[in-house]
Amino acid sequence: MSLEYITLNNNNKLPNIGLGLWKLDPKTNVDTIYNAIKVGYRLFDGAVDYDNNVQLGIAVKKAIEDKLVKREELFIVSKLWNNHHAPKNVKPAVDRMLKDLQLDYIDLLYIHFPIPFAEVDVNDDEHYPPGFFTPNQLEEGQKGQIQLENVPLYKTWEALEALYDPKNGVIRNLGLSNCQGVLIQDLLFGCKIKPQMLQIELHPYLPQWKLVEWCHLKDIHVTAYSSFGSQSFIELKSAKADNCINLLEHDKIKAIANKYEGATNSDVLLQWALQRGLFIIPKSNNIERVKTNLEFSKKFKDGLSKEDLDVIASLENGTRFNDPWEWNNMKFPTFI
Amino acid sequence: MSLEYITLNNNNKLPNIGLGLWKLDPKTNVDTIYNAIKVGYRLFDGAVDYDNNVQLGIAVKKAIEDKLVKREELFIVSKLWNNHHAPKNVKPAVDRMLKDLQLDYIDLLYIHFPIPFAEVDVNDDEHYPPGFFTPNQLEEGQKGQIQLENVPLYKTWEALEALYDPKNGVIRNLGLSNCQGVLIQDLLFGCKIKPQMLQIELHPYLPQWKLVEWCHLKDIHVTAYSSFGSQSFIELKSAKADNCINLLEHDKIKAIANKYEGATNSDVLLQWALQRGLFIIPKSNNIERVKTNLEFSKKFKDGLSKEDLDVIASLENGTRFNDPWEWNNMKFPTFI
Repeated sequence: MSLEYITLNNNNKLPNIGLGLWKLDPKTNVDTIYNAIKVGYRLFDGAVDYDNNVQLGIAVKKAIEDKLVKREELFIVSKLWNNHHAPKNVKPAVDRMLKDLQLDYIDLLYIHFPIPFAEVDVNDDEHYPPGFFTPNQLEEGQKGQIQLENVPLYKTWEALEALYDPKNGVIRNLGLSNCQGVLIQDLLFGCKIKPQMLQIELHPYLPQWKLVEWCHLKDIHVTAYSSFGSQSFIELKSAKADNCINLLEHDKIKAIANKYEGATNSDVLLQWALQRGLFIIPKSNNIERVKTNLEFSKKFKDGLSKEDLDVIASLENGTRFNDPWEWNNMKFPTFI
Repeated sequence: MSLEYITLNNNNKLPNIGLGLWKLDPKTNVDTIYNAIKVGYRLFDGAVDYDNNVQLGIAVKKAIEDKLVKREELFIVSKLWNNHHAPKNVKPAVDRMLKDLQLDYIDLLYIHFPIPFAEVDVNDDEHYPPGFFTPNQLEEGQKGQIQLENVPLYKTWEALEALYDPKNGVIRNLGLSNCQGVLIQDLLFGCKIKPQMLQIELHPYLPQWKLVEWCHLKDIHVTAYSSFGSQSFIELKSAKADNCINLLEHDKIKAIANKYEGATNSDVLLQWALQRGLFIIPKSNNIERVKTNLEFSKKFKDGLSKEDLDVIASLENGTRFNDPWEWNNMKFPTFI
């Protein structure tokens, strides 16, 4: 198995491979998660916005009841959604996550995006998770027009710090997602608890060399999402995804895979990330693939070669598939 | 004359062409500034770090005494340096600027970088301006190792807001410099006074399309610095500057210049910025050039053509000459 436990800056440990739950098929997600535990997964990367906390909770409960695993062996990850950034809404939002998950603590909680949308009550079941809904869409009929709320990042962070304790808190580890270095650095200048983890889009087209180097210098670990590049975005009908070569089919990655017995493009992409000291959270609805995503490293005994790494590095082109600038044409300057 | 007065988000006005004072020759800067006023300049873009506030003050005083201009017709710009970000140091730093400038207000004050260095007393004449000096260099002999201080941007901003009043404050307009959009947006979520101006490196190699578009959407004006690209950085022995084609000598810019009677590369570069609605602050030690930099627009009666603009747009390559990541190898994540 490729999975390793890595020590974070608060001395907690987390496994460096988890199952990503974004867009996991809702018809089969309980089984997929349960079976993933069976084959050795211990970390589940969920989020309020993925709309499957309830199913994650059911699968985890069943696995614990069936004695596949103990709660303390699992690492349940969630993410605070954009409509719940106001300090007064943070604890209710976390309480709702815990209730849906049927758990009494979350192992790692991220701020999903550094973008505060106008608040939507966490108990408004009609709009939970709120997604891109904001109240002005009702009032003003401005469908698709996102309404922001004036909450600077440090205020949301402070509210999360109040729930954090590395051993006994309802939040055991804190993270940021989709943040640039300069914003993280500015948070570090004022925060009491520094993030344990940053989760960002990261693949050969967008390798994030500097941001990863800087986070590691600051003792903040980095989780790569969308390790396969455009794959997750094709089903979202992203024009950007349609216009680029899918890394899972890319000839240059394929040529590397062919050098290692039994290896696929997917294996190469995950190995590349793992070799960089990153955490990964590949998703699949296919349990065989889920299993492979935990075991690929044995195909690369001495790792990818310098030559392979150079080829992968040559693919960089800055393509960012998940860019809030493009969300409903909102032009939020997350990455400018 | 190309100069126009543009209304800011607080209803104050500023001329869109000024004289940049960074690296203005210290042997002749008083005369250059005085003569610039004579030929029609009204805005002077200074900074504590440029180490010429005293000379700017002398030139301004003489020009007023000689009745070339009245104080209220001039726009004196300065920038808070990195070692003076702690709230308690902001007023002393502004007081020192005013004393050096022999003025009782500053028209536009920027935070020079969103990077708080360890404090250096503003009255420590041996280290004023402190530049890249930080106290640990004395204590620990770590020459060149920059020491940071824990001051998030909003705290420095709050201290500046306390000195701001658009009509009667010791600061009449507030600005940020060298900031990315996401950091500015996060400041907007919490500030009382929003910036009137952002000053950033901007030239055809680094056109900053999105950041400018977003600032203009938010009613924040943008001043371009280093309009000529590498020119300012050659004398700093920047390898990046040595390795790129100087825009002042670039064939493609030259071909455009040749289409407009009397136009030079420099004229094209300034016209391009002005046409984008940007403020510009070209610097020259040569008074003839200083004068030209105020009058270039008359060479472009109908502006640069769509075709010209497309050629200039094709030069984009992301080269950023002024990147704190490279300062003494400090790896500050200003732009990642």
